[in-house]
Amino acid sequence: MSLIVQKFGGSSVADAESIKRVAKRIVETRKAGNEVVVAVSAMGDTTDELIDLAHEVTPIPDAREMDMLLTTGERISMALLAMAIKSLGHEARSYTGSQAGMITDAQHGAARIVDVTPVRVREALDEGAIAIVAGFQGFNRDSRDITTLGRGGSDTTAVALAAALNADVCEIYTDVDGVFTADPRVVPRAHKIDTITSEEMLELAAAGAKVLYIRAVEYARRHGVTLHVRSSFSPAEGTLVINPTEGEKVEEPIITGVAGDLSEAKITVVGVPDVPGKAAEIFTIVAKTGANIDMIVQNVSAAATGLTDISFTLPKSDGQKVLTTLKAEQPEVGFQSLQYDDQIGKLSVVGAGMRTNAGVSAQLFTSLSDNGINIEMISTSEIRISVVTRADSLAKATQVVHTAFGLDSDGEAKVYAGTGR
Amino acid sequence: MSLIVQKFGGSSVADAESIKRVAKRIVETRKAGNEVVVAVSAMGDTTDELIDLAHEVTPIPDAREMDMLLTTGERISMALLAMAIKSLGHEARSYTGSQAGMITDAQHGAARIVDVTPVRVREALDEGAIAIVAGFQGFNRDSRDITTLGRGGSDTTAVALAAALNADVCEIYTDVDGVFTADPRVVPRAHKIDTITSEEMLELAAAGAKVLYIRAVEYARRHGVTLHVRSSFSPAEGTLVINPTEGEKVEEPIITGVAGDLSEAKITVVGVPDVPGKAAEIFTIVAKTGANIDMIVQNVSAAATGLTDISFTLPKSDGQKVLTTLKAEQPEVGFQSLQYDDQIGKLSVVGAGMRTNAGVSAQLFTSLSDNGINIEMISTSEIRISVVTRADSLAKATQVVHTAFGLDSDGEAKVYAGTGR
Repeated sequence: MSLIVQKFGGSSVADAESIKRVAKRIVETRKAGNEVVVAVSAMGDTTDELIDLAHEVTPIPDAREMDMLLTTGERISMALLAMAIKSLGHEARSYTGSQAGMITDAQHGAARIVDVTPVRVREALDEGAIAIVAGFQGFNRDSRDITTLGRGGSDTTAVALAAALNADVCEIYTDVDGVFTADPRVVPRAHKIDTITSEEMLELAAAGAKVLYIRAVEYARRHGVTLHVRSSFSPAEGTLVINPTEGEKVEEPIITGVAGDLSEAKITVVGVPDVPGKAAEIFTIVAKTGANIDMIVQNVSAAATGLTDISFTLPKSDGQKVLTTLKAEQPEVGFQSLQYDDQIGKLSVVGAGMRTNAGVSAQLFTSLSDNGINIEMISTSEIRISVVTRADSLAKATQVVHTAFGLDSDGEAKVYAGTGR
Repeated sequence: MSLIVQKFGGSSVADAESIKRVAKRIVETRKAGNEVVVAVSAMGDTTDELIDLAHEVTPIPDAREMDMLLTTGERISMALLAMAIKSLGHEARSYTGSQAGMITDAQHGAARIVDVTPVRVREALDEGAIAIVAGFQGFNRDSRDITTLGRGGSDTTAVALAAALNADVCEIYTDVDGVFTADPRVVPRAHKIDTITSEEMLELAAAGAKVLYIRAVEYARRHGVTLHVRSSFSPAEGTLVINPTEGEKVEEPIITGVAGDLSEAKITVVGVPDVPGKAAEIFTIVAKTGANIDMIVQNVSAAATGLTDISFTLPKSDGQKVLTTLKAEQPEVGFQSLQYDDQIGKLSVVGAGMRTNAGVSAQLFTSLSDNGINIEMISTSEIRISVVTRADSLAKATQVVHTAFGLDSDGEAKVYAGTGR
């Protein structure tokens, strides 16, 4: 008998009919002899609607009260789901984040889970019942207040429960069939990945893949939880996200997937005096804004001028505040000017096999240049290579790279051992 | 400095604009130097909408889950109200029934309050904050589940808080100016009562007056809480519902108010053998159905037949089940037939002054017969006389009695001491 945690998002429980459909799915899993725990999001657009309602009342809603308000969304869906399951003849009970033992810090709107003690959930399972838990929320012991977990909160709730209950798998139900080798809307020949390591999934998510939240993947990785990303509209197997133990032989395609990201912009600090400490000064200033810096490139300085340019990428939403902050510090730092480029695209190839295979960078750069796509910045990690191109080249770049690495659904995935990169 | 509890119903907080308006009202009360606690209902028709949503999912929603679902309504309004007050510059915090220490029994959907320990509310007040409490809900210690209090729950929450916190007054905000001498829609010349004893209010509410729930008035009476029923649309004084101590001289109009009730029906058990125990047998059978019997009349039996008729009134909604149950027991009891009359109206006059004044019944019966209205049943208590007439005579009966007792807004209210009734 397995213990399965299932997570259903807002679109899966958008109305009464969907809730009844999901209830049937849950009951099937239970009937197969499994212990079942479900984490559920608010119905449809409820969370956004509640946020709008709050803003109708005041432009600056209090954070504690906002969490009290937003958590009603998951309470509504979990209660309805439990009702639906009971009407199918199976015992089911709903639990709020607090009742399920999701203990968090006091950061309203972005709380971190500090402990998970799902005593009542375990009791329910022991009595043969299905436990439904409200996603996205927890309880802070110090203030005795309800908190919400921020974006990806329901996925994180599911994974945290799976970890605490020692679940055999955590199924994340979504509206796509699984994790794909690339966004199928950009690369029609992308195909579903059967198995991917959590390390690769993390890189793919960080690189722009939207099917799972980085935070939930991180939690799963840290606690050894196996994820199964699958479709709520079909019984087909989806993508397993696994945590292979050290030395465990896992077949590693060189490249597992390709991700594109159009959400970043590039800032270039032009004409920085090439003296020790200038880069540190600039990034200390930027860090104070709280902006999330991604790629950094420092050009070799021109001997004649003793000046250099430093470029970095960041989310477009952070662009304005960083520009303003740097501009204010221009006299102090002494750079000549700032350039802002929001027409960049970031392409990433991810694959654990990269570690043991030579020539991946070469293959990447060649396939791009063969197709007339210019590379402006490069950034790498152990299992990921990212390049920056023009935004309007990103779609084509994604397609050609996908093909070059044999990921096209009618192509052969290349798997072989090699020596270094 | 006074401690004031204020209760706002669903129509007072129906949308963002109303919430902001109520927030201003609350802040004014606070600014006047009072400690303020607010009990609030769900916005508008939220509760009914949630009930409908549950029934879309299943015809037989589980009671525990229904309470989890319905309590989100008050959580939403209390959080929005706290946000609105904070945006006006005053500290405010919302508390669920559980957080506010409303401890109940386990009866989902109709829980009784067993204890009130508003520790966190008192702490908030001590810190100078306004406390907003979700109405209609509490917490059961044994099951550790959230419960709802049933009809009149938010009024009861407010009164219970007022009792536990030793409030100076509990203001019930509604959409009428106060308690009236009769329903103004039936008796245009009805006027607002300035002060009424809780005993009279109880009788008026039981007799059909809809402005306050019997349950909340009972709680206030038992715990000595003063109620102030007033309009949320006007700053004018409403009606004070007081608990005069024994011997306290309170000016007592003979008749405080007149109430009409069209919600009852009459069942006549025809041809009951006039032997000891038959009435007991009949009402024991009826009691098993759980129906709420109101007035009972047993005719004097006809010597010739040795048979008698027994009539009683009850809510129309209980009519069918009682008829069915009695019919099934007909052979056992031995009556001849059953009659069902759902065209009755019940008129009640209420007044503490009745205790010390003769002639009230006479005046009542005379005014009715003078206007051609036939009396079919009579029932009395210390401070109330009720009569049953034809339903289509009820409006006229209410008006003539209102006038006969000097309650018309241009008439003189009769106040004098007398001897007996």
